[in-house]
Amino acid sequence: RVTDTPVSSVSPAFVVMKFDQEGNVTSFEKKKTELCQELSLQARDLRFQHSTSLTARNNCIIIRMELLKAILTPQSLLVLDFRGLGLERWLVLDLAPQLASQTHTLPFEFRALEAILQHKVNTLQARLNDVEPVMLDTLESLVDPKILSADRSKLHILLQTSKSLSELETDIKVFKDSLLKILDEDEIIEEFCLTKWTDPRVFEESSLGIDHAEEMELLLENYYMQAEELGNKARELKGLIDDSESVIFINLDSHRNVMMRLNLQLTMGSFSLTLFGLIGVAFGMNLTSCFEEDPRVFWLVTGFMFLGSGLIWRRLLSFLGRHLEPSVPPLIPPVWKRNLKASDNRTGVKC
Amino acid sequence: RVTDTPVSSVSPAFVVMKFDQEGNVTSFEKKKTELCQELSLQARDLRFQHSTSLTARNNCIIIRMELLKAILTPQSLLVLDFRGLGLERWLVLDLAPQLASQTHTLPFEFRALEAILQHKVNTLQARLNDVEPVMLDTLESLVDPKILSADRSKLHILLQTSKSLSELETDIKVFKDSLLKILDEDEIIEEFCLTKWTDPRVFEESSLGIDHAEEMELLLENYYMQAEELGNKARELKGLIDDSESVIFINLDSHRNVMMRLNLQLTMGSFSLTLFGLIGVAFGMNLTSCFEEDPRVFWLVTGFMFLGSGLIWRRLLSFLGRHLEPSVPPLIPPVWKRNLKASDNRTGVKC
Amino acid sequence: RVTDTPVSSVSPAFVVMKFDQEGNVTSFEKKKTELCQELSLQARDLRFQHSTSLTARNNCIIIRMELLKAILTPQSLLVLDFRGLGLERWLVLDLAPQLASQTHTLPFEFRALEAILQHKVNTLQARLNDVEPVMLDTLESLVDPKILSADRSKLHILLQTSKSLSELETDIKVFKDSLLKILDEDEIIEEFCLTKWTDPRVFEESSLGIDHAEEMELLLENYYMQAEELGNKARELKGLIDDSESVIFINLDSHRNVMMRLNLQLTMGSFSLTLFGLIGVAFGMNLTSCFEEDPRVFWLVTGFMFLGSGLIWRRLLSFLGRHLEPSVPPLIPPVWKRNLKASDNRTGVKC
Amino acid sequence: RVTDTPVSSVSPAFVVMKFDQEGNVTSFEKKKTELCQELSLQARDLRFQHSTSLTARNNCIIIRMELLKAILTPQSLLVLDFRGLGLERWLVLDLAPQLASQTHTLPFEFRALEAILQHKVNTLQARLNDVEPVMLDTLESLVDPKILSADRSKLHILLQTSKSLSELETDIKVFKDSLLKILDEDEIIEEFCLTKWTDPRVFEESSLGIDHAEEMELLLENYYMQAEELGNKARELKGLIDDSESVIFINLDSHRNVMMRLNLQLTMGSFSLTLFGLIGVAFGMNLTSCFEEDPRVFWLVTGFMFLGSGLIWRRLLSFLGRHLEPSVPPLIPPVWKRNLKASDNRTGVKC
Amino acid sequence: RVTDTPVSSVSPAFVVMKFDQEGNVTSFEKKKTELCQELSLQARDLRFQHSTSLTARNNCIIIRMELLKAILTPQSLLVLDFRGLGLERWLVLDLAPQLASQTHTLPFEFRALEAILQHKVNTLQARLNDVEPVMLDTLESLVDPKILSADRSKLHILLQTSKSLSELETDIKVFKDSLLKILDEDEIIEEFCLTKWTDPRVFEESSLGIDHAEEMELLLENYYMQAEELGNKARELKGLIDDSESVIFINLDSHRNVMMRLNLQLTMGSFSLTLFGLIGVAFGMNLTSCFEEDPRVFWLVTGFMFLGSGLIWRRLLSFLGRHLEPSVPPLIPPVWKRNLKASDNRTGVKC
Repeated sequence: RVTDTPVSSVSPAFVVMKFDQEGNVTSFEKKKTELCQELSLQARDLRFQHSTSLTARNNCIIIRMELLKAILTPQSLLVLDFRGLGLERWLVLDLAPQLASQTHTLPFEFRALEAILQHKVNTLQARLNDVEPVMLDTLESLVDPKILSADRSKLHILLQTSKSLSELETDIKVFKDSLLKILDEDEIIEEFCLTKWTDPRVFEESSLGIDHAEEMELLLENYYMQAEELGNKARELKGLIDDSESVIFINLDSHRNVMMRLNLQLTMGSFSLTLFGLIGVAFGMNLTSCFEEDPRVFWLVTGFMFLGSGLIWRRLLSFLGRHLEPSVPPLIPPVWKRNLKASDNRTGVKC
Repeated sequence: RVTDTPVSSVSPAFVVMKFDQEGNVTSFEKKKTELCQELSLQARDLRFQHSTSLTARNNCIIIRMELLKAILTPQSLLVLDFRGLGLERWLVLDLAPQLASQTHTLPFEFRALEAILQHKVNTLQARLNDVEPVMLDTLESLVDPKILSADRSKLHILLQTSKSLSELETDIKVFKDSLLKILDEDEIIEEFCLTKWTDPRVFEESSLGIDHAEEMELLLENYYMQAEELGNKARELKGLIDDSESVIFINLDSHRNVMMRLNLQLTMGSFSLTLFGLIGVAFGMNLTSCFEEDPRVFWLVTGFMFLGSGLIWRRLLSFLGRHLEPSVPPLIPPVWKRNLKASDNRTGVKC
Repeated sequence: RVTDTPVSSVSPAFVVMKFDQEGNVTSFEKKKTELCQELSLQARDLRFQHSTSLTARNNCIIIRMELLKAILTPQSLLVLDFRGLGLERWLVLDLAPQLASQTHTLPFEFRALEAILQHKVNTLQARLNDVEPVMLDTLESLVDPKILSADRSKLHILLQTSKSLSELETDIKVFKDSLLKILDEDEIIEEFCLTKWTDPRVFEESSLGIDHAEEMELLLENYYMQAEELGNKARELKGLIDDSESVIFINLDSHRNVMMRLNLQLTMGSFSLTLFGLIGVAFGMNLTSCFEEDPRVFWLVTGFMFLGSGLIWRRLLSFLGRHLEPSVPPLIPPVWKRNLKASDNRTGVKC
Repeated sequence: RVTDTPVSSVSPAFVVMKFDQEGNVTSFEKKKTELCQELSLQARDLRFQHSTSLTARNNCIIIRMELLKAILTPQSLLVLDFRGLGLERWLVLDLAPQLASQTHTLPFEFRALEAILQHKVNTLQARLNDVEPVMLDTLESLVDPKILSADRSKLHILLQTSKSLSELETDIKVFKDSLLKILDEDEIIEEFCLTKWTDPRVFEESSLGIDHAEEMELLLENYYMQAEELGNKARELKGLIDDSESVIFINLDSHRNVMMRLNLQLTMGSFSLTLFGLIGVAFGMNLTSCFEEDPRVFWLVTGFMFLGSGLIWRRLLSFLGRHLEPSVPPLIPPVWKRNLKASDNRTGVKC
Repeated sequence: RVTDTPVSSVSPAFVVMKFDQEGNVTSFEKKKTELCQELSLQARDLRFQHSTSLTARNNCIIIRMELLKAILTPQSLLVLDFRGLGLERWLVLDLAPQLASQTHTLPFEFRALEAILQHKVNTLQARLNDVEPVMLDTLESLVDPKILSADRSKLHILLQTSKSLSELETDIKVFKDSLLKILDEDEIIEEFCLTKWTDPRVFEESSLGIDHAEEMELLLENYYMQAEELGNKARELKGLIDDSESVIFINLDSHRNVMMRLNLQLTMGSFSLTLFGLIGVAFGMNLTSCFEEDPRVFWLVTGFMFLGSGLIWRRLLSFLGRHLEPSVPPLIPPVWKRNLKASDNRTGVKC
């Protein structure tokens, strides 16, 4: 054999749960080498190096779907190392009855493969369902135009869900690729029809004369398309995040502009008051202005200070109003009407 | 059959509207199993799992276009579960007359397929037509250079239409993919020509000796290209949103800069007034400055305060003007003239 | 025939301009049905549904290039509905002489096809030439570092040209796709060599024994590559817009930072003046400070106010200077030198 | 031979380390020309121009993986110019034992190729492992919502790791491409099975009758998929950087808005104080107001100044509160619920 | 011939530099028509319409690489219109000796083709080498965290180099495409082996019995891969610009936030001073407060003013500190640890 890298640290024994065609479920421990000999596989085939893989080997289908490792033979499904992965409930409550169901006209490997692929798609769908409402809620509250500053715990959640979404997208892509690799080559599809090669009787019995390979292609294609739909949904969510971020930025910028205008208006007011207050300060100096004794002057100057401030402020505000309304040429045509392509009229183009 | 998942919760009966070649329309209810037996289909074929699919099965074409589910046989078109989907008007007013029209030289399945695909394309087009003017209006008002802060309800609408556009793009892509899957394989196109296989008489009668498969390819390709045009349009709109957002940001930033310059100019003014006002404050102290009795000093100091403020402000403003006009080297060549590639002149490059 | 949709509202008659091999140009009106019969085409073939299409049909080539609709037979070129589209000048002044030119050794359909494709490429080129200088001028003035706020009418123009560019890109892509569809299938190229099938004499006469199909492929490929070059140019322009927008944003942000620093420096000054002015205000109170009579105190306090303000301001400014210059570790290595990949030295990696 | 460019400055001699099947390791120097003659290769084959290449030549496999240059013959592996590259430890401690291991049933070239490819994948993985934690730490501290301004040394690190990641992505892509070029052509895979062509005895001895070419395909595919997983991981990290940058910007903008609101509130306070302080200034003028002698007036005016300031400030603050809470129409529907496509109800669409 | 467009304004004569196999270089002028006749080419073949093209025609290879136009026959290389393009030095000093070199075992066309392709790759490399250091220097100085505002002349340079890079990317892509078009079709590669068809003697003499077509494929593939490496490098640079721009924006934003906080702190100080200064203003009024005569009151009020200001300012600053440190929930888990996918634990998922 090719390698025996100590890195992969293969445990020499598997805990196996075996489902046979009659619905019997047995669980036992078996050495890896024994298992290989029994199924005429090579140790290398049971290394499960890639997180998602579906391969036909010597009339077995070797499956890995993230946590789930399984070997599918024409007569039985062996699930390996299933403990502590949270798979037990599914194995016992869902998989066993499905495999035992006698209403199927297609052979055992179809039932088993469908159950496993459906489980995988359900897992992906469940992850999307987990992420989607959290993300939509978070975005909904972040794009709320009333908020002046983004809630940071929401941003945290957004970052987390965005990361989960990226991982989900990768996993969907890997799953699709592993199916596509099979669908692209007719020979591999044939290899997946285990019963066809081992039990011709089953094949002849099939009342409808169904072509196994074609059925297998339909089955795999079905799950491929389901994964594609999940992928489309995930991509749409990604796009939604981008669009929302733009809106968040526009919102924050708008708030800032509004506040800046208010600030500017107040600064104008303060400036006016300071300017005319200077008159008051001048008259407050311990210097002789010769108006000291005239009681009317007090009211005159005070009135002038307040009125002057008010008037100057008003002028400044109206100046601001005019300044912010830019002097656009009065008749800019709207951008969006599909403009007639001017060049189409040019008939004299040399050719 | 492969599975019978209770999840999909297939209703055991369909409400069927049947259109035959003579233009008769009948509506009845039928059990799923009966329908399958009648058309020699399998229950699985009528599960309509994917939102958009076109498949040939045992001399029937099974169609799902989002809400519309239909089975097309050489003699009739069966529309399933059509109630409550808003399809009734189209079915009665448009589809029935089209199918009954006797001017067609091509067999029934062509007429029916064309009617359904045209309906699908029209639906997609209608959704684009719904979104486009709203989006253009919203963008038009958002890029308006006069606005200081973006109108938030407009942003809301923009986000909504942008989301609709993404969904529309996905649906167009799915529709195109389902057509492409057929167009890519000549065998499947052949399978779609139902009459060719069932009614050779019709085939011979066809006055022009048309090749059915080629006609079918043309028909499908036509709708493929229409969907492509819709997709191009949607992509252009997406690009327009991106471009507009950049312009909105530049607009908001420009407003802010303008306001900030005004603010800075006023701050300069206030600073000048405060600086020279300090003189007045100093003379306002109850301390002896020895100038108390000289009436000219009052006017002198007051004049100095106002004049000094004004002069300092003016200097500050001119300093600001120079400061913002950066000291670029006087002769930066313009970026945009396609610069002669200097390296082309290097003839001595070793090779 | 398949459909007769009233939507497309086909005018029952065409205004036709006919160019024959001898250079004669005639113009007449003809019913659509007559035209179909004459050329053995079907009504469907003359529906021109797609904005850009090139199809061979029954020894004719049916062409639509946006506004231009034409039918090319081995002996003549029929241009349909040419009025009011601005095409007249091109038809009369350019197309007619080109078609009549007797210097060509290749048959009529090559000359006609080349003239039409060249016209299309010229039209696309002209649109690019229209857009490019406007866009470059606009960008040039927008990225000008001296401007404090973007000129909004420039932004308007930028948005418009950017939109035109997107439309142009789509049109180039559609044109390329329609050529590629022909180039990808040798059979279709053969169909395009009309004369080869109708006039063997011409074929034999050809002095050089040229393979018509190969010549046709070269001709189409030539225009494909010209369109590709236009597409490359358009994509470069798009990239230039993106780059320029980044620069505009950096410019606006830089201006803002400069103004904010000035503002902050002035605020520091005002703060200092206010702080020490408080002393003056204190002494201005009508309260007994016991210094009232000492003339030196006036100058002392006044001097302290001004000097103190100045000193505090200076300290604040130098604090700002230090604050903005961040305490980066003194020896950050530059980012850009291609760092030796540290991991390459790791020889002990297990494998 | 084709060229002898002095640019490439080929050293005329190689330092060679030779590993044979029995596990013997010898090291010697050899002239390039002698080596070529010995292996019947051409000088050109040993030029190692591309950073990553795998080519079969005259029953040798010539390998370059960045620093590692090797020639694989059916009997031995020659590593060239291995000094000073940090490869020694790996060569002596890892490669030698692996090649000597007698537990393999497949011939020598499989063992050697696997060792080298595994080394390459490990190197790429190690580089990713170097970059990932640094990048995650940096992003973690940059997106921290508590920070007001980004730590610049962190930005520096971010830029550096981002650059390393880009280079890593390129190297992974180049490695994948070089494997894909072999996997895409069955002939080249056959050429890689050196022993099959040279030593039929080994082939027959192989106890399992394994097809060498199929084994080779599996081996290469395995490393292709490992590289693909690394590539996916790197792409996810890139996406994480983008998402984090958006969050950083939102954070900084939020901080700014919060500070601006505080600033605005204080400006409002200052404005109020200035406005009512003007009254005090007015009464501080050395002018006769006739209230001088009434002690109640002092308290009245002082109270009015402070109370008035307070009241005006409160009004301004509540005005600000209302101003920032925009007058959105009360019942904007949430964006995110998948809106029923209105157009689906349109049944009367013409088709 | 197909067209004779006056647009292309073909000069009727070429200035030709001829390199033959013996290393003789001659230069002469020749009419285009004579040249065509001599080489049995058609005028169309010598139109050089596309900026980069490599085509085999009637046992000649016609080459255009931007400025360089050449015709390669089995015996000689003709370089056309070489004057004034800066190519002379390369032609005389590099090309001539290379072509004359007798050490090559492969025929003349290989030597010539390699020299020309190498020249092209060198030109592209030189352009990249021109752009890269300028761009890295510019980015290095722009991402410097110490700068408060971007240096505008640097931005200008950045924009220019970015544009050059885009053009370079396009040119590399065009060059790669022109090589790929040949590599994709074995027939065209055969056509490129000129000597094989014309001079069987050379072929037999070749001592190693090399397959010319295979050698040609290797030669072209070599340059394809070199161009690919250049393209990778250019793409990495583009990515670096994007990353750097983000860092520049974060830097500028950070500076702004720091300045804004300083500004806010000073505004708080000014506010406090204004608030308590109002007391001083109140006591400065010419109104009777009854404290006029008590000397302790002066120090009391003055102390209160300064102390009060200080205290209020301190409170405001600590309020700011708390305000900016947001009330995040204390235990947000870090984002970056790859979170266990919760959904994997869900075993009860229906399938």
